Amino acid sequence: MHSFKNDYSEGAHPRILQTLLETNLEQAEGYGEDQFSQQAAELIKAGLCSSDVDIHFLPGGTHTNLIAISAFLRPHEAAIAAGSGHIQVHETGAIEATGHKILSINTSDGKLNPESIKKVLAQHTDEHMVKPRLVYISNSTELGTVYTQSELIELSSFCRDNKLIFYMDGARLGSALCSAGNDVALSDLPTLLDAFYIGGTKNGALLGEALVICSDFLKEDFRYHIKQKGGLLAKGRLMGIQFIELFRDDLYFQLARHANEMAALIRSEIKNAGFDFLVDSPSNQIFPILPQRMIKELQKKYSFQIWAMVDEDHSAVRLVTSWATQKETVDDFIQDFQKLINMNDI
Amino acid sequence: MHSFKNDYSEGAHPRILQTLLETNLEQAEGYGEDQFSQQAAELIKAGLCSSDVDIHFLPGGTHTNLIAISAFLRPHEAAIAAGSGHIQVHETGAIEATGHKILSINTSDGKLNPESIKKVLAQHTDEHMVKPRLVYISNSTELGTVYTQSELIELSSFCRDNKLIFYMDGARLGSALCSAGNDVALSDLPTLLDAFYIGGTKNGALLGEALVICSDFLKEDFRYHIKQKGGLLAKGRLMGIQFIELFRDDLYFQLARHANEMAALIRSEIKNAGFDFLVDSPSNQIFPILPQRMIKELQKKYSFQIWAMVDEDHSAVRLVTSWATQKETVDDFIQDFQKLINMNDI
Amino acid sequence: MHSFKNDYSEGAHPRILQTLLETNLEQAEGYGEDQFSQQAAELIKAGLCSSDVDIHFLPGGTHTNLIAISAFLRPHEAAIAAGSGHIQVHETGAIEATGHKILSINTSDGKLNPESIKKVLAQHTDEHMVKPRLVYISNSTELGTVYTQSELIELSSFCRDNKLIFYMDGARLGSALCSAGNDVALSDLPTLLDAFYIGGTKNGALLGEALVICSDFLKEDFRYHIKQKGGLLAKGRLMGIQFIELFRDDLYFQLARHANEMAALIRSEIKNAGFDFLVDSPSNQIFPILPQRMIKELQKKYSFQIWAMVDEDHSAVRLVTSWATQKETVDDFIQDFQKLINMNDI
Amino acid sequence: MHSFKNDYSEGAHPRILQTLLETNLEQAEGYGEDQFSQQAAELIKAGLCSSDVDIHFLPGGTHTNLIAISAFLRPHEAAIAAGSGHIQVHETGAIEATGHKILSINTSDGKLNPESIKKVLAQHTDEHMVKPRLVYISNSTELGTVYTQSELIELSSFCRDNKLIFYMDGARLGSALCSAGNDVALSDLPTLLDAFYIGGTKNGALLGEALVICSDFLKEDFRYHIKQKGGLLAKGRLMGIQFIELFRDDLYFQLARHANEMAALIRSEIKNAGFDFLVDSPSNQIFPILPQRMIKELQKKYSFQIWAMVDEDHSAVRLVTSWATQKETVDDFIQDFQKLINMNDI
Repeated sequence: MHSFKNDYSEGAHPRILQTLLETNLEQAEGYGEDQFSQQAAELIKAGLCSSDVDIHFLPGGTHTNLIAISAFLRPHEAAIAAGSGHIQVHETGAIEATGHKILSINTSDGKLNPESIKKVLAQHTDEHMVKPRLVYISNSTELGTVYTQSELIELSSFCRDNKLIFYMDGARLGSALCSAGNDVALSDLPTLLDAFYIGGTKNGALLGEALVICSDFLKEDFRYHIKQKGGLLAKGRLMGIQFIELFRDDLYFQLARHANEMAALIRSEIKNAGFDFLVDSPSNQIFPILPQRMIKELQKKYSFQIWAMVDEDHSAVRLVTSWATQKETVDDFIQDFQKLINMNDI
Repeated sequence: MHSFKNDYSEGAHPRILQTLLETNLEQAEGYGEDQFSQQAAELIKAGLCSSDVDIHFLPGGTHTNLIAISAFLRPHEAAIAAGSGHIQVHETGAIEATGHKILSINTSDGKLNPESIKKVLAQHTDEHMVKPRLVYISNSTELGTVYTQSELIELSSFCRDNKLIFYMDGARLGSALCSAGNDVALSDLPTLLDAFYIGGTKNGALLGEALVICSDFLKEDFRYHIKQKGGLLAKGRLMGIQFIELFRDDLYFQLARHANEMAALIRSEIKNAGFDFLVDSPSNQIFPILPQRMIKELQKKYSFQIWAMVDEDHSAVRLVTSWATQKETVDDFIQDFQKLINMNDI
Repeated sequence: MHSFKNDYSEGAHPRILQTLLETNLEQAEGYGEDQFSQQAAELIKAGLCSSDVDIHFLPGGTHTNLIAISAFLRPHEAAIAAGSGHIQVHETGAIEATGHKILSINTSDGKLNPESIKKVLAQHTDEHMVKPRLVYISNSTELGTVYTQSELIELSSFCRDNKLIFYMDGARLGSALCSAGNDVALSDLPTLLDAFYIGGTKNGALLGEALVICSDFLKEDFRYHIKQKGGLLAKGRLMGIQFIELFRDDLYFQLARHANEMAALIRSEIKNAGFDFLVDSPSNQIFPILPQRMIKELQKKYSFQIWAMVDEDHSAVRLVTSWATQKETVDDFIQDFQKLINMNDI
Repeated sequence: MHSFKNDYSEGAHPRILQTLLETNLEQAEGYGEDQFSQQAAELIKAGLCSSDVDIHFLPGGTHTNLIAISAFLRPHEAAIAAGSGHIQVHETGAIEATGHKILSINTSDGKLNPESIKKVLAQHTDEHMVKPRLVYISNSTELGTVYTQSELIELSSFCRDNKLIFYMDGARLGSALCSAGNDVALSDLPTLLDAFYIGGTKNGALLGEALVICSDFLKEDFRYHIKQKGGLLAKGRLMGIQFIELFRDDLYFQLARHANEMAALIRSEIKNAGFDFLVDSPSNQIFPILPQRMIKELQKKYSFQIWAMVDEDHSAVRLVTSWATQKETVDDFIQDFQKLINMNDI
């Protein structure tokens, strides 16, 4: 049984474990003030071509979102997110638990644009309603879709004009930036966004996300918020060491490219066989719409998430590849898929 | 320069890293539902001689405290803690950030007892004040002191009689249970406490605390709270694997014993030299009161925390040993200490 | 200029002020433990034909909603409400500020039903999402619509079957229960709902809502929550005295009937003139769709809220009557309306 | 039975009720945007000799404290208060429920000074602890004591130097400013404080406190916070009308002076009889230490709070007078007191 359920089914890239071993008995300061975290921050700043950002390493994605958003907003301010946004659907009300409403926008592809945000702003006019203040996007989105540079520029300029904080959840940023057709560079991000994070957990790390705070007015006292919300790991070195490995050369992007390539192989096979997709996603998550009977057959050897029933006979499934997905596994899957197609009754 | 600042200056016990390597490419379920976490939970239950507790692995101590306490209390209920308690002093208001007041009790040794709690209860009589509902202790305490079995039994029975939830922060539980004079067994705890955690971070793990919920009425829906507060790691395996290693044999206690032994060597040396201690602590944290000039000299080769100024010429310092503290380092420290004593002017 | 903007433009019914004067210098206990509040609670219990409910008087509607809902829910639990629900739109995120997500259901008439709630439940299946736990309805709704007895019975039974707390915002309960076609009696409510409030502010009081807690499991320690959220007025007598007046005879319903009658006169006039309504509402709020030019003319003598643009030439407006709306004012409005209709160009 | 339990046992000053009656049927805007609230704000500004403050009318004291403090602080920031401070003891954790820790300072007279605050600042040095950010004082204090002008100037300058927000709870401000020896004028306050409130409830109003925000950086969006916390009364006129009456002439201070005079009569009688006081308070709350047997006798005709047991035979009681306390009642009390003194056995 092989799992295409997510991109965190395995441990870490072996190079990461190796470096953990090598540095294991070096003493280091606690709580992220260690030499490793500092070096990792420098490497990321180099990758961003930006020296005046603040970098904080945080254990997980939901945790990063809730710490950042609750630190950035005053009590009456709200976040705007797609209806499919991770903070809106899959974080057990983590943002609301810090006191903030999420204003949700329905989308078909998980992406926001100025037009849809404008409508939300128009509906929030006085103190009887929350004050929209932060725009949350994810890239790639929860539907595997990716923002183009011009889309980000438009959103960024709209946010600036409307005094909205522009925040990006980059749990799968590696895959987004390596996806076919992407024209956004990592170094574009600090000029476009007020804050964002570079996801490690879903791209080869054991755990860890690198939050990048670009705008000065969001930087003050940020470590207090991390500590208060339980995110200041005593052995912060654990995240520092991992991000050193991911960013001291091209490893972060190599891993993402590999995940994308594995997804592309499956995608083109399914596409060629004439099947539709729930959404056209160029990253490491794909959502083919398959016959129920084929799904049942595939489930005998592969585990994956059934995303949504499309009609009585078809469902969209979610297949996720990762840095650890092996070419052989993909080949097997494709073979099995072809066999099922060739069978008369599917 | 060697650090006695804390017990999390190094990485993890090598056996842990080794097992991380060996299991690295096995696929596992996300979010703590993996085979490793399940096995680790079983091993801990065996160690507790209790099968009807719930075990949850959480990334860090502050995080565990805030998730547990906020899950256990209704909005108007408060926690009672020693004035030196970690939740009262060193968690940046994490408990209050979830909405709950901490009622603080001054102590000299960091330990609570029924008498002092009774006074707090007597002062909280109606709805104009918070309702005391949870008693927070730590074992060992922030001052390195340790509860005896009879003290825990008294507290436990007092809590039961007064409908108080009895919760123990076990960040340094290993050291407490291995300390000289300790008469509490790990398997005593489920009958004494409503919930407690077994600290991994400060006893050889990279990160991770095992929260044990003993009382049924606290168990329901607990995973929702973990997720909402950002504590549900995608690769929960990381904590499961570590706790397997710590609890599949006696490793957890071996590491704690070693830390205690290293502290004992330093303690007896300083004691024999005629110095006092801020508090008499039998665990891996000691608080000798030393002359300022000696402190200055020691700081040239060792880093440690200056805990409190005692008088103009003396301060109490905190020396912490760990599973990773080497006998050679302790010997060096003792030699350096003796040299300073033999110098005329200290 | 006369205002049809809301039902709280005037002070209180004169009888209320009279009794405030007469009792003014009698001493009373503070914080709602006074003789007046106790008598008012007894009168309301009599009206409810129920002696085992708890009654609490609270200053305002948003305040009542936030105190009740935050007291009733555990941290990971969410409220379900119509997209037009007061807690969802017009309380500045008050519920979220206490930590709870609102799951919003789109409706055309502001009313919930088991079918729509069932869909929400189906989407919330595990600990990565909030746990739906409370169903919030308002009666009359924010669109002036009213629940029938059979609708409430269905909802009530659905909630019970699904362990959902059933809560009703009765800011305009008087108007609902006196509206044409209503078949719900005040005394039906304790058997249908877990908790609800009887609105005073919008039906003749200076301020004050009477929260009725029907289900035992929601009653414990409720006064703590009132105090913690700032709702325990030192001079609780102020609310007690008012509710005595409203409930010592039929005054509460007299006032509501009057408001409804005044709305009915305007409604039938507009209907007869051939205009549509945004929604068919039998209570004291009506939402006629009028030509923009007519609206402009009416605004010269009357103030009211423009609710929504329907097309370029028409908007729905909201006209609200109250216990204080005088028949003469309504007659004037109708005359002015007829004049505008008779003019050629509207 | 006459109550000296508090200063809110009666209704409102008759002139207030009279004006409520007279204005009752005038229509007004909702939510504090009415003509009455605006006029009241202007009158208060005149009394403050300050035109650039923001004035908000809020229903009660706890509510005002929680709305103001939670609006003023960022999540990691804490308030400093006396151990006897209302927010620390008697608000059911209202401040913590908004997420903020209170750092408590023990005092004998309920008053803070720079020295004691300095110690708190010295203990809060990094992100592992909350950041002290707001100094809460009450004037008069919960012990009836009063700040002098020089004390306020010192505190104000200390706060400014240390970037602390200086906030005053003025629930009994009238009594403080009219107390013997007071040298603070109402018009001094805007230059000394960042924000404070002028208490209405305890000085002749039915309900209502006037929050004065002096410092510009605290003003923005404040009405959002009021609404979110349930404090925006639909009929805000109720508070506006009352404060017009209190401030259109000297009524506010007349009422306070009367309360103080009544307390002074009792105080001097008890003092002359040779009894001590828990604290020397010049305002409308006095805390004589009386023999238990005398207390028992007095309780037959008067109700009051037993504040603290001083020794086995004596307790301090709290006697509170108000605008409504009649000279005759005080005379009766004094006579009864004298009788008890003349009895052999007390």
